[in-house]
Amino acid sequence: MSIVVVGSVALDSVETPLGKVESALGGSATYFSVAASFFTKNVKLVAVVGEDFPQEHIEFLGSKGIDLEGLQKVKGKTFHWSGRYGMSLSGAETLKTELNVFETFSPKVPENYRNAKYVFLANINPELQMEVLTQIKNADLVVCDTMNLWIAHRRDSLMETIKHVDILILNDAEARQLTDEQKVDKAAWKILDYGPKRVIVKKGEHGAISVTRSSYFSSPAYPLKSMLDPTGAGDTFAGGFVGYLASTGDVSEQSIRKAVVYGTVMASFDVEDFSLNRQRTLTKDEIESRFDEIRIITEF
Amino acid sequence: MSIVVVGSVALDSVETPLGKVESALGGSATYFSVAASFFTKNVKLVAVVGEDFPQEHIEFLGSKGIDLEGLQKVKGKTFHWSGRYGMSLSGAETLKTELNVFETFSPKVPENYRNAKYVFLANINPELQMEVLTQIKNADLVVCDTMNLWIAHRRDSLMETIKHVDILILNDAEARQLTDEQKVDKAAWKILDYGPKRVIVKKGEHGAISVTRSSYFSSPAYPLKSMLDPTGAGDTFAGGFVGYLASTGDVSEQSIRKAVVYGTVMASFDVEDFSLNRQRTLTKDEIESRFDEIRIITEF
Repeated sequence: MSIVVVGSVALDSVETPLGKVESALGGSATYFSVAASFFTKNVKLVAVVGEDFPQEHIEFLGSKGIDLEGLQKVKGKTFHWSGRYGMSLSGAETLKTELNVFETFSPKVPENYRNAKYVFLANINPELQMEVLTQIKNADLVVCDTMNLWIAHRRDSLMETIKHVDILILNDAEARQLTDEQKVDKAAWKILDYGPKRVIVKKGEHGAISVTRSSYFSSPAYPLKSMLDPTGAGDTFAGGFVGYLASTGDVSEQSIRKAVVYGTVMASFDVEDFSLNRQRTLTKDEIESRFDEIRIITEF
Repeated sequence: MSIVVVGSVALDSVETPLGKVESALGGSATYFSVAASFFTKNVKLVAVVGEDFPQEHIEFLGSKGIDLEGLQKVKGKTFHWSGRYGMSLSGAETLKTELNVFETFSPKVPENYRNAKYVFLANINPELQMEVLTQIKNADLVVCDTMNLWIAHRRDSLMETIKHVDILILNDAEARQLTDEQKVDKAAWKILDYGPKRVIVKKGEHGAISVTRSSYFSSPAYPLKSMLDPTGAGDTFAGGFVGYLASTGDVSEQSIRKAVVYGTVMASFDVEDFSLNRQRTLTKDEIESRFDEIRIITEF
């Protein structure tokens, strides 16, 4: 099954107490696509970059089998995010957001993307997310991410968009912000009233939950010995999640649970290095091995 | 197998946004003993109360089959804790701590408690915890709890005590405070260097982890629809945990994992009402049913 993802392709400058990178490959759609590419070679990207976007990044994405027909290259500079993490490596402080070509981005879904069965709306303005949905009419599964910015400043648009999605993925802080509920479970149950059939809440070191009106699944995080940079973990989770589902074509509860665990596994690799560096050497065997480990640490 | 528990038996005045109780039954050893009594009728209590301690509470504990030979009744008033919880029901604000007879408490372990195989050192001054260990020499398993107060103000004594325990149980905030590690996993691994063979970290709504040098287990919390008062949840967890182990006499990794889940289940009932009110009507069937539910929500 093919996946269309719309989101950002960016250059990130990231600083943590353990190191830093300048203008490294980043962006929500990038992290998503690369993670999904470990499960399916049918990932179709919709995004925009500027003239300064290095050809080597294009080649890297191409080498992963990602369809780049929907990646517009326009006059100007690529979206550039600069952030810093403190000792706890949780929650980045944004130092600078240079939208550049992203400021006027209007997602155009290429003709031959429009029959895609899986859609991932990465974290962009919810109005743009809706524009994408109007262009892809027959998707089997629409999965959507968001962030604090849109919850605070585009709440009405966001509430409209999430009425049209099957699965909303967000982190615990966002779930609390969206619902005014302090407990993550209660927040998730409340979000189901807003429209999505399923809510997945990512809780960082505490794992993730996947909740519908009739089911509840809890996955732990993978216990990490070392972590360098959490950037992209959420999008990488989503990439593993949707990538696994698209590879099986099965969206039953049982398959969704495995997909949540694959998302968890992919995120655990992402944070081990800056940018997408860990993903460059990652193998399918390593992924399967961590999947098995999560089974072992939850069995009783 | 018999369990000796030493800790507080108290009267608590608790206020939450959802209600309040005045001078209700409380105390770490109380919550522990009652939870453990659902698994074994061989729980032996060491604690102290004052002349004002209501006879009905003595009768309630007796009705649970708890051995009260070690419950001293002395001149003065019973330990009285007053606390208040905010909207999130996480982390009490202590309004008043009246130690009363607890101020001069010196735990005396009755002769016929001294061959107990399981010992639970509830959250009291670590020097008193050591006094208990010198009186019970042949225990198979010593489990210990602590709190922020002792970590901050009796750190040396606490570090000495935990060298002599098999399992240290503490919550996530305490684990961070004890180790200066922000991530709970890293905090748990570091505590293993201090002496205990196993560390169990309770993470509230995020469940619990049980960690040794060679194993890692993660249990979710039970997804609660409603919660009234979190007081005693930690001690109730410990009571379910040690109570289950004592009922089987098996401290293998597999048994410990089940015990962690039973601890989780017992804590989930405790928080549904004030004081030990929920425990008064709780049945073994209800416990088993929630245990099965936790299996269902973690399976993939």
